[in-house]
Amino acid sequence: MRILGLDPGLRVTGWGVLTADGNRLSHVADGVVTSDDDADLAVRLAQLHDGVMAIIDRYEPAEAAVEETFVNRNPLSTLKLGQARGVVMLAPARCGLPVAEYTPNAVKKAVVGRGHAEKGQIDLMVRMLLPGCTPDRPDAADALAVAICHAHRRAGLAALVAGAAAR
Amino acid sequence: MRILGLDPGLRVTGWGVLTADGNRLSHVADGVVTSDDDADLAVRLAQLHDGVMAIIDRYEPAEAAVEETFVNRNPLSTLKLGQARGVVMLAPARCGLPVAEYTPNAVKKAVVGRGHAEKGQIDLMVRMLLPGCTPDRPDAADALAVAICHAHRRAGLAALVAGAAAR
Repeated sequence: MRILGLDPGLRVTGWGVLTADGNRLSHVADGVVTSDDDADLAVRLAQLHDGVMAIIDRYEPAEAAVEETFVNRNPLSTLKLGQARGVVMLAPARCGLPVAEYTPNAVKKAVVGRGHAEKGQIDLMVRMLLPGCTPDRPDAADALAVAICHAHRRAGLAALVAGAAAR
Repeated sequence: MRILGLDPGLRVTGWGVLTADGNRLSHVADGVVTSDDDADLAVRLAQLHDGVMAIIDRYEPAEAAVEETFVNRNPLSTLKLGQARGVVMLAPARCGLPVAEYTPNAVKKAVVGRGHAEKGQIDLMVRMLLPGCTPDRPDAADALAVAICHAHRRAGLAALVAGAAAR
């Protein structure tokens, strides 16, 4: 089962793909999609959307997961992030993939083991949990962290269902 | 020249199409695209996006215009609106249409003649400027107002260019 994790941003959107076999995870690929600072907003949104569509075409994930956005104090930043997040989430939805959302705390807890973690710790744990993976950019590491969180949540659910069936 | 005006919202997105021949405007169609309150966010965003894509397919506008969003005091509302706005603006951008943005004050000024106007006044002036048009919903009237603002801006620019060429 391939999972696509996404960390949306108007300038840089991180993405990461992994395969999950129960709790066993392996890294497939990761990277970032960027938009052109100088372009009009609508063009930048199309660049982000097309970039994520290309990742889905290439890696054919079965499910997607996105971090719930940290709401910024600055309303203009929140609006920008919202616009980016909308077009990024739209890509898997248009391809018929279920799109799960996780709070930043849930993601940190899944990866580092507790809800409050430094950026560096997430990057380190992502490399430990997905041997051989060396994301260049923090946005790509964050996207892999969301994918790991989704894989754990799915495995936990599957174990619960199996347990109920065995009873 | 057909112009598509859009007034984005996660629940209800207004749209309106008019034709502009210099300063002469005529109404083509208007309405709203809605998303299903009970559905997941990603599904709702896809519903809005698909709805606007269908309008573009049907009416084939050459340009689009969107109101710059009023940034809400409530950051969660701002984020929601941003997500809706992103996928709504993406539709014309994906079709290769230029997408202009106007502040609420610019739209009011173009339609009512001054920057501060009541909702009811916009609706009334839209009906006067586009004879025969009777938008059911305020969101559709607002979308037509944005399209009118864009038509005026284009006509003003064209007059400037013609004036410069005649000199």
